[in-house]
Amino acid sequence: MSKVLVGIVIGSDSDLPVLQEAVKTLHQLGIPHEITIASAHRTPNQAEAYVETAESRGLGVIIAAAGGAAHLAGVLAARTTLPVIGVPMKTSALGGLDSLFSIVQMPAGVPVATVSINGARNAAILAAQILGIKYPEIRQQIKKLKQEMEREVQAKAQKLAQLGVDAYLKGMGT
Amino acid sequence: MSKVLVGIVIGSDSDLPVLQEAVKTLHQLGIPHEITIASAHRTPNQAEAYVETAESRGLGVIIAAAGGAAHLAGVLAARTTLPVIGVPMKTSALGGLDSLFSIVQMPAGVPVATVSINGARNAAILAAQILGIKYPEIRQQIKKLKQEMEREVQAKAQKLAQLGVDAYLKGMGT
Amino acid sequence: MSKVLVGIVIGSDSDLPVLQEAVKTLHQLGIPHEITIASAHRTPNQAEAYVETAESRGLGVIIAAAGGAAHLAGVLAARTTLPVIGVPMKTSALGGLDSLFSIVQMPAGVPVATVSINGARNAAILAAQILGIKYPEIRQQIKKLKQEMEREVQAKAQKLAQLGVDAYLKGMGT
Amino acid sequence: MSKVLVGIVIGSDSDLPVLQEAVKTLHQLGIPHEITIASAHRTPNQAEAYVETAESRGLGVIIAAAGGAAHLAGVLAARTTLPVIGVPMKTSALGGLDSLFSIVQMPAGVPVATVSINGARNAAILAAQILGIKYPEIRQQIKKLKQEMEREVQAKAQKLAQLGVDAYLKGMGT
Amino acid sequence: MSKVLVGIVIGSDSDLPVLQEAVKTLHQLGIPHEITIASAHRTPNQAEAYVETAESRGLGVIIAAAGGAAHLAGVLAARTTLPVIGVPMKTSALGGLDSLFSIVQMPAGVPVATVSINGARNAAILAAQILGIKYPEIRQQIKKLKQEMEREVQAKAQKLAQLGVDAYLKGMGT
Amino acid sequence: MSKVLVGIVIGSDSDLPVLQEAVKTLHQLGIPHEITIASAHRTPNQAEAYVETAESRGLGVIIAAAGGAAHLAGVLAARTTLPVIGVPMKTSALGGLDSLFSIVQMPAGVPVATVSINGARNAAILAAQILGIKYPEIRQQIKKLKQEMEREVQAKAQKLAQLGVDAYLKGMGT
Amino acid sequence: MSKVLVGIVIGSDSDLPVLQEAVKTLHQLGIPHEITIASAHRTPNQAEAYVETAESRGLGVIIAAAGGAAHLAGVLAARTTLPVIGVPMKTSALGGLDSLFSIVQMPAGVPVATVSINGARNAAILAAQILGIKYPEIRQQIKKLKQEMEREVQAKAQKLAQLGVDAYLKGMGT
Amino acid sequence: MSKVLVGIVIGSDSDLPVLQEAVKTLHQLGIPHEITIASAHRTPNQAEAYVETAESRGLGVIIAAAGGAAHLAGVLAARTTLPVIGVPMKTSALGGLDSLFSIVQMPAGVPVATVSINGARNAAILAAQILGIKYPEIRQQIKKLKQEMEREVQAKAQKLAQLGVDAYLKGMGT
Repeated sequence: MSKVLVGIVIGSDSDLPVLQEAVKTLHQLGIPHEITIASAHRTPNQAEAYVETAESRGLGVIIAAAGGAAHLAGVLAARTTLPVIGVPMKTSALGGLDSLFSIVQMPAGVPVATVSINGARNAAILAAQILGIKYPEIRQQIKKLKQEMEREVQAKAQKLAQLGVDAYLKGMGT
Repeated sequence: MSKVLVGIVIGSDSDLPVLQEAVKTLHQLGIPHEITIASAHRTPNQAEAYVETAESRGLGVIIAAAGGAAHLAGVLAARTTLPVIGVPMKTSALGGLDSLFSIVQMPAGVPVATVSINGARNAAILAAQILGIKYPEIRQQIKKLKQEMEREVQAKAQKLAQLGVDAYLKGMGT
Repeated sequence: MSKVLVGIVIGSDSDLPVLQEAVKTLHQLGIPHEITIASAHRTPNQAEAYVETAESRGLGVIIAAAGGAAHLAGVLAARTTLPVIGVPMKTSALGGLDSLFSIVQMPAGVPVATVSINGARNAAILAAQILGIKYPEIRQQIKKLKQEMEREVQAKAQKLAQLGVDAYLKGMGT
Repeated sequence: MSKVLVGIVIGSDSDLPVLQEAVKTLHQLGIPHEITIASAHRTPNQAEAYVETAESRGLGVIIAAAGGAAHLAGVLAARTTLPVIGVPMKTSALGGLDSLFSIVQMPAGVPVATVSINGARNAAILAAQILGIKYPEIRQQIKKLKQEMEREVQAKAQKLAQLGVDAYLKGMGT
Repeated sequence: MSKVLVGIVIGSDSDLPVLQEAVKTLHQLGIPHEITIASAHRTPNQAEAYVETAESRGLGVIIAAAGGAAHLAGVLAARTTLPVIGVPMKTSALGGLDSLFSIVQMPAGVPVATVSINGARNAAILAAQILGIKYPEIRQQIKKLKQEMEREVQAKAQKLAQLGVDAYLKGMGT
Repeated sequence: MSKVLVGIVIGSDSDLPVLQEAVKTLHQLGIPHEITIASAHRTPNQAEAYVETAESRGLGVIIAAAGGAAHLAGVLAARTTLPVIGVPMKTSALGGLDSLFSIVQMPAGVPVATVSINGARNAAILAAQILGIKYPEIRQQIKKLKQEMEREVQAKAQKLAQLGVDAYLKGMGT
Repeated sequence: MSKVLVGIVIGSDSDLPVLQEAVKTLHQLGIPHEITIASAHRTPNQAEAYVETAESRGLGVIIAAAGGAAHLAGVLAARTTLPVIGVPMKTSALGGLDSLFSIVQMPAGVPVATVSINGARNAAILAAQILGIKYPEIRQQIKKLKQEMEREVQAKAQKLAQLGVDAYLKGMGT
Repeated sequence: MSKVLVGIVIGSDSDLPVLQEAVKTLHQLGIPHEITIASAHRTPNQAEAYVETAESRGLGVIIAAAGGAAHLAGVLAARTTLPVIGVPMKTSALGGLDSLFSIVQMPAGVPVATVSINGARNAAILAAQILGIKYPEIRQQIKKLKQEMEREVQAKAQKLAQLGVDAYLKGMGT
């Protein structure tokens, strides 16, 4: 599992602050990954070159994030048989509904596995779940993550039970 | 003006009944045109090959029609400096709002000239208006078309004035 | 690869006509699969029982289809680390926008790989792409499918070039 | 009426600042209540355990608040015959339309009594109205609340009549 | 329990075919009910008279169905402390989104318990769940209904397992 | 009151079947009216000529109906101080949401009195209400209309009370 | 014209900052007016009392502003034959789309003259245009207003022509 | 190419900060242009006068920007055979969806080439692409722009590869 398994492609560096969360999550799960900028519209050749070597370079999953008329995920999916996960970016005018429709409504034959608007962390977890089919150690990592998540919510529930609403909110800085 | 000036690309042959209107309008305006099927997702190489020879083959405008996650117009626009007109196809689930957002919300740098949902006739007229900048005979054709359109509405107004609402509706077969 | 690899769960038998397409596609790709009815709201215990044995029974991917307040995919995803693919069903009142939002907008930690509204065929292909990471023979099948798809579009483009628009449309029965 | 009658469940502690209003309103109406954190997706077992003991513990109504793909209310409603009130949380990208659709569009058989986006106070009042069927003293409390509300609006109307628009606005700090 | 417990008010007799389902469900659950037509806009006095005697006549819950600018539920809720359930009717132009917003987005102080678009059956079940707080025999009826619902889905699941997809669909007449 | 008081302008004769209802209502109310076809886009000069003589010809109110990018009402309102009522036409792709936004969202300074999608009857009644300010006999007509409307709903309520739901629905031919 | 001609009703004092613009505009046009707070839901009797004396007190037009499930305008329109102008208030969650639908989508028989979201100034101008039918001096005022508006835009156009974009923007403080 | 080729019309000077980008882009491309303020609703005569001399003054393309019920582009397109590019302005209440629908959904016969919400830069580039049909030097400029755009994205990709995510984000000031 030393080679890169997940490739993240963002359409613009303005997407990086959100996608940083995907990078962190993959790191946390111990999954080798890479991230690059390639635009379906401004650098179509780069995007094409990236995806056409993806399988041979050993990538297992591609995560593509873009906003507005977000064609990146679909354009990559057109040229690979690897699963492509699409992250619709929130947009200033339409809240990301444009990005969501552009990514999820793919025609029959070329699916994109779409996650929630700005759902960078979920894109990483979904990539891990997909890789978990082949790599038992990754599946173990997700199970751990799921358990931590559960414990975290339980801890908050206990804290709320102990402190009551007002003290809990004060602790949140609200 | 003997060479082909307008290239129409449809993402699927299910778009043909709507785009037939664009073909008819270009024919009516005397503008040489061609139409083909090429999908941004199912035949990305064909789409790419089409657009990369477009300018050298003498095309002046490209019309691209697609529905849902409608990437075709944007993908063509990424690879040409010719103006690309996008026709968002009406869709069964979302009425074409998905197609519209996928076509019109292009990022800065790569515009698509978007017309109305299923607006095939307007795509042809817009193509003619664009070509009219260079070809005075095409501009003349659009002026004629605009005048005919005006006369047609005026004739209907006169008919309504003469017949009254009930008789007019009877004549419409309503 | 003799054991069942893909489990399809539908929330209601009214979803079956659409999901039949997923069954056909998995069959076409030679992927062992099963389909059942289990509702997140009407048979929550069955849904829970189904997903909790999924991994141990050898399933690799779960496809969940539901409409309206479509909780099925999310409820299954909460209880497994297998990738869950969600198919938002088209609805009579809101066209499936309700189903789409209910499936795709999952909170951080529990992703659902969402495909297009009524996108049953794409759910099956995505499942195959995911399994293709582990099973080279499945990846081969998808490559074949992609090539057939490409050839099919090319054949239509050639037919349109030969017949012209009017004859082509007549052939479509339009 | 000494036992807890209303149970509030929030999917995440980020919902607490809004739901605090429900807590305050139930307190104001003298209705014993409790609040906890349980996620349909991150702690499905806790959510399930909570609802399955709800009736036996004497709860009369459950209020469930969640955002995005907001499954919590539906998931609780699947496992109880107590009335479940759903509060759709406002979301950053889609304004809460996703939460609303996910909560209100329940399939036939399993209703959720949905209130407005971020409508925590109304959830508490609705809970009180429901309990008022059995507990006349709660119905009295709501009547008082309704009268106070009426008096408050009337007082504002009188103040506006006396001060005029400009002075009134100055008093509002606008 | 001989007196009428649930009053159904519809804004127009065009809503009756949908609301008939609520009547049938209340009948099935053995809950005494009545149904009338009263419009918030066309017969405001009747609507007002209806709601102002509701509590004294022994009603426990009011179900109000209306479409478009659907004010009926809110107008009734303004004049009673009984819980009011709102059913947004599907509309021709906007699919019922107008009805839904008009019913669910009530201001703080006056809630309407909103169910899904055209959700007449759920309105009846919700009314029963509310009444179940006071009437144990009604709660028993809902439990039975829930179990039947579960059995029905299970029976379908078994039938699908036995018949397979094609035979099942043939049996559905699809 | 012999001269024409209400002028109806439709953007296309395809709007006539819907607007016929406005003509009938004005006729029923005894208000002299006229109807013509003039398009803001196809016959801008006719539209302009129509509105510029409207006041001098004695018109009191203008009703303008159009669909899609429905500019007609706004374009007329720009050139008159008479009140202009806009009727957004239902559209095939977007249900009339496009028409509604195009008519109602006028900039500060130039209002259009917008009625519901396809609300031709309401446009006529609103025109009558406006004229009722000056013409007491028209106000009387509206009062009569309102009373008839009330009686009609009451008669239906009585019929439903007498027949019951099933017989009533049979009578509706449902 | 000494008596009050326009009555403004707001559903909540939180609407006052926006409706202040209507007050200012009516003042500017020299039209006697009044403003009060009355809620369709919290003070239904006050709202009813207000509208039932409106005609006898000499009001010519009513302006009603409300947000969310904005029933105020419709509820007033149900009880008067005066024209009612509805102002949909912008809302935090849905931007005012809920208010707009609740106001504009009135059923046949009871129109509300709807203006744009937060369109307080246009509500006042529309009221003036309506009154202008009877009061020539008000029509004169609107003509003046329209001319001033035109001159203002022209002055800006000239300023832009003289200064150029950069200096103009600097002058705007952008 | 010394005469003005592109005319930009904005409906209000509040649109200027956004349209400044179009001015800059045309300047960067060396295309002679002009910008003015003319409102379809507040100065309809100016708007009409502007467009009717446009062709004779040598303009090749018109860019029209407006928000809300954005009629400007359509009103200009009604009176010219030059291509008109519409820029839908983002709006406070509806995010610009109203502007987009008002501009793009033009009826058959009168197209507007619509770009994205606030897409001023793309309007300028599209104007250049259209003019490029006639003026080879403009086409060269766009090719250069496209190449620079490509290089810029590539440079960012290289920088990200060298710096890594954290350092890159620090450099962005995030």
